[in-house]
Amino acid sequence: MSISDLGEFGLIASFAERLPRGETTLVGIGDDAAVLAMPDGRVVASTDLLVEGRHFRRDWSGPEQIGGKAAAQNLADLAAMGADPTALLVGLAVPAAESADWVQRLVAGLAQECTRAGATVAGGDMASADTVMIAITALGNLAGRAPVTRAGARPGDVLAVAGVLGHSAAGLALLAAGLDGPAPLIAAHRWPHPPYQAGPEAATLGATAMIDISDGMVADLGHVARASGVQIDIDSGRLPVPVLLADAAAALAAAPAPGTATGPGSGGSSDSGGPLGWVLTGGEDHALAATFGPQTPLPPHWTVAGEVTEGRGVLVDGQVFPGRGGWVSFGDKYS
Amino acid sequence: MSISDLGEFGLIASFAERLPRGETTLVGIGDDAAVLAMPDGRVVASTDLLVEGRHFRRDWSGPEQIGGKAAAQNLADLAAMGADPTALLVGLAVPAAESADWVQRLVAGLAQECTRAGATVAGGDMASADTVMIAITALGNLAGRAPVTRAGARPGDVLAVAGVLGHSAAGLALLAAGLDGPAPLIAAHRWPHPPYQAGPEAATLGATAMIDISDGMVADLGHVARASGVQIDIDSGRLPVPVLLADAAAALAAAPAPGTATGPGSGGSSDSGGPLGWVLTGGEDHALAATFGPQTPLPPHWTVAGEVTEGRGVLVDGQVFPGRGGWVSFGDKYS
Repeated sequence: MSISDLGEFGLIASFAERLPRGETTLVGIGDDAAVLAMPDGRVVASTDLLVEGRHFRRDWSGPEQIGGKAAAQNLADLAAMGADPTALLVGLAVPAAESADWVQRLVAGLAQECTRAGATVAGGDMASADTVMIAITALGNLAGRAPVTRAGARPGDVLAVAGVLGHSAAGLALLAAGLDGPAPLIAAHRWPHPPYQAGPEAATLGATAMIDISDGMVADLGHVARASGVQIDIDSGRLPVPVLLADAAAALAAAPAPGTATGPGSGGSSDSGGPLGWVLTGGEDHALAATFGPQTPLPPHWTVAGEVTEGRGVLVDGQVFPGRGGWVSFGDKYS
Repeated sequence: MSISDLGEFGLIASFAERLPRGETTLVGIGDDAAVLAMPDGRVVASTDLLVEGRHFRRDWSGPEQIGGKAAAQNLADLAAMGADPTALLVGLAVPAAESADWVQRLVAGLAQECTRAGATVAGGDMASADTVMIAITALGNLAGRAPVTRAGARPGDVLAVAGVLGHSAAGLALLAAGLDGPAPLIAAHRWPHPPYQAGPEAATLGATAMIDISDGMVADLGHVARASGVQIDIDSGRLPVPVLLADAAAALAAAPAPGTATGPGSGGSSDSGGPLGWVLTGGEDHALAATFGPQTPLPPHWTVAGEVTEGRGVLVDGQVFPGRGGWVSFGDKYS
C-alpha cells in the first residue's frame, strides 16, 4: 500500500498507535501541536535535516537504519548541551508512491533510538516530495544543570572524548569500496549509538565546553576553539583507535578501489583515510568532546585526549592538521 | 554570492547577526542546540514542512513572502493550542548554487513574522538539495493555561472563528488565472497574517476545542468533530464573506481560464470556487476555529459561525458539504 493510498492522516494514525507515549507527553500526535512537560523551566531544542543522496543512500541503509541514524544525530545534539532527551518532532518528505511500510519502518527506527535515549516521538508532519528528506527537531530537559556551550573552554583545561570515533567513517569507506565487513563498522555507519548519558554527566562534572562530533573531531573542535578563543591540542596517542579500524584499512588495501568515498565522515581528503585519519576527521559516530577543568575527576565514559592552551585553532600532536578535518555541508556529496 | 561560496557557517553567522535575540533565548544560534526559557514548565511544539512546487512557487512568491508564510503557518499551530509563540527552529534545504541573498531574504521574512507574533528565530540547520524545502518547528509557552485540543467540543457549544477566511484561496485562484488583483487577496495568499492573539484569548475564555484552519474550514472542523465525537453545523450566513471575494470572483469570471488552480487553499474541486466556497474550503489564511460553552461572552476577535450537536461530521446549513472541504496532502499539487 502506498502513502497516497493510505493517506497522510491514515499514516499518522498508524504512527500514533505504534509509538509509545512518554510520561512527559501531555498532548501527543494528532493535534495542532504537541505539549510536553519541561519541568526545568527551560527547553533545549535542536533541528537537523537529512537529505537522500547527501546524508544517506537507500541502497546502503534500510529504513529502520535511516530513521535510527536520523534520531541519533539529533538526540546527540541535546546530550552535547548537557540535556536529557525528551522528545522528537519529525518532518518527513517522501514520494507519494513510496510504500507505507517503508515509512512505518523508518518511524520504527526513529522510535527505537528514542527509547534508547529515553525520549519519545511526540509529533510531526508529512509532505510529498521527489526525494526523501527528514527534518528532526529534538527537545530536551536540563534538569537544573547549566547548559554546556562551545564557548567556555579555558587554557589549562583538559580535552576528553566519550563514545567511539572513526567507526562510521571506516564503515562508509568499506561500503564505498563494495565491502561488507568488518560488520561492526558498517553497522556503526548505518546506525550510530551516541553516548547520550555522557552529556548530562559532563554537565554535572562542570564541563567548560562540549560539542557533538558530527562533521569530524578536528573540524568540530575548531568550532569550540573559535567560540572559546583558545587553542586545542589533540594528543593522538591518547585517542582510542581499536584494532577493528586497522582491520578495515587492511581490507580496503586488499580491495580494488571503485572510487573515493567523499561522504560525511570520510573527511573527503586522502590524508584522512586509515585508522587515525578516520578517528581525527570522521563524523557521524556522534561521540562527544568536552573540556574540563584540570583537576576534574573523569568517570569511565570519558578519555583524556589533549589539552586547551592559549592561542587559536586546533593542533594534532602540536602540528597544524594538514587535511580539511571533516565534512563540508555545501561542498561534499554522499554518493 | 552563492551559498557554497559563503559556506553554511558563513551564512549561519550572517543570520545570527541579523536576527533579534529574544529575552527568552538563553543560548541562541551557533551551538549544538538552542536553550529557551519556558517558565510554564511545559513546551508546546509543532513541526511543518513546506516543499517547493507543492506548498509554494518561487515565480509566485518572493523569498521574504515564502519565509513569512512558512513562519505564519507554524506559529498559528501554537495559537491553536492556546499558546504564546516563543521561538522557531528552521531547517532549510536549498540548492548549493542558490544566492546567499535569496536565503537571507527568506530568513528576514521568517524573522519579520516572528516579531509580529512575539517570537524569535533561535536556531536551525541547512543542507543542500535539488529543490527548496523548509522545515519549521515552532515552540510556545502556555503561561499557565490549559492547552486547547481538538477533542473537547460538546453538544450545545457554539462554533466561532477568528481571522480572515477564503482570502488566501481567492488569491491563489487569481494567481493561477494570471491576474494581479484584487491585490489584498494576492498578498494574503503570499503572506497570511494569522490572528495569533485570539488563540491564548480563547484558551483563557475556556474554549473547549480549537484548530488552525490550514487545509480548509470544512476539512479541519472534520478533525475536531472526529476527535470530539460530535457533529459541527456551520451556519454559512454568519461567516464573514467580504466584498473583496465577490470582486475576485467577478475578475475571474471575466478572465480567460488558463487552467484550474488545485493548490492548497483552493479546495481543489469545482464546488469550492467563488466567495462562499473559498471561505468554506480555503486554507492557508490560518484563521482559528474554536468551540465555546454556550454562555461564553466572546470578544471582538471571535465571530459565532455555527453550533455543536450530537452526531458526527460537519454540516453546512444542515447539509452534508458536497465537495472535499480542503487540501489533500498526498493528492494535491500546487503548480
